[in-house]
Amino acid sequence: MKKSRLEKQFEFILEADKEKSILRQTRLSDGEHYENDADHAWHMALMCVLLSEYSNEKIDVLKTISMILIHDIVEIDAGDTYAYDAQGASSQRERELKAADRLYDILPPDQGERLRALWEEFEAGQTAEAKFAKALDNIQPAMLNSATDGIEWVRHGVRLSQVLKRNKNTADGSAVLWDYSFNNFILPNVEKGRIIED
Amino acid sequence: MKKSRLEKQFEFILEADKEKSILRQTRLSDGEHYENDADHAWHMALMCVLLSEYSNEKIDVLKTISMILIHDIVEIDAGDTYAYDAQGASSQRERELKAADRLYDILPPDQGERLRALWEEFEAGQTAEAKFAKALDNIQPAMLNSATDGIEWVRHGVRLSQVLKRNKNTADGSAVLWDYSFNNFILPNVEKGRIIED
Repeated sequence: MKKSRLEKQFEFILEADKEKSILRQTRLSDGEHYENDADHAWHMALMCVLLSEYSNEKIDVLKTISMILIHDIVEIDAGDTYAYDAQGASSQRERELKAADRLYDILPPDQGERLRALWEEFEAGQTAEAKFAKALDNIQPAMLNSATDGIEWVRHGVRLSQVLKRNKNTADGSAVLWDYSFNNFILPNVEKGRIIED
Repeated sequence: MKKSRLEKQFEFILEADKEKSILRQTRLSDGEHYENDADHAWHMALMCVLLSEYSNEKIDVLKTISMILIHDIVEIDAGDTYAYDAQGASSQRERELKAADRLYDILPPDQGERLRALWEEFEAGQTAEAKFAKALDNIQPAMLNSATDGIEWVRHGVRLSQVLKRNKNTADGSAVLWDYSFNNFILPNVEKGRIIED
């Protein structure tokens, strides 16, 4: 039986629920529990509402928030790849493309194509919106890592060169926010030896 | 020392992290884990991106999503009040007002006032955006309750009259979505005895 537009939309919405069970390698500010992908996307979306004034370039806030809300949907199938997991990163793109094929195909074509294009735009990181969303994607976990005394940086033996490589485009989204993140979240943790200076 | 605008914004953003630890009385579609407030807000925001076409009245989608993202922030202090908890409901407004005073005061005044006004607008449920956001706030848990064989409806001994009272304004936000929710999430669970017909 052919599914209606609304049935397809609700099928996708219910499937998206699984994102709440994908755990990240970032602890909540309680220092104990791990954040899930939906928590992370909600937090980034809230940051976008409050911090869009610091984007280097003028952004379409609704577009940026929509991009943020769906930026990790592919991890329902592909799983979370830790920022500093080189092995995982090598197969990440392939796993995520396969996930995008399956997941966005659940939606009515117009919406599936729109959301998939938003995700691809995020991944490419070339537009003003994607650059700002990617900046928030890096700053949000740095804030939580710093708030939890760098416990996950220490646990993973993270080096400053890795953090800087990860953040090489953060200032392209927002020079102001990169400066704040570096001076308040990263540098103090290098000084305390929680991020290894190399 | 006087805090800068950006320091105040990040103080609020870090405080908001606590919303991820407020558990609701709704299970995830895995039927096991409970949803938290941030999960719920993310899911509603995603629904707003996909379903705004069904709003009875034309809505400002960015405003509606912003409202959704912050609609449960007060629960950081006030806790989650279950939809069918009459005792909790009697003190809910007072507890939430006190929470709003503390939390929105962390932000720079312009943003604190803006977000608090958005929350009050949601609570009042009179504008097109608030009516649609409130409809999603009712439909999202009904969808998850239905997807988990009504386990929480059964556990709480929920009656149809309670569900209908809770949803008395859902059709004001979206007649189409209320119709879908009633016929696909609520009615089948009445027929299966998971919601008590009274």
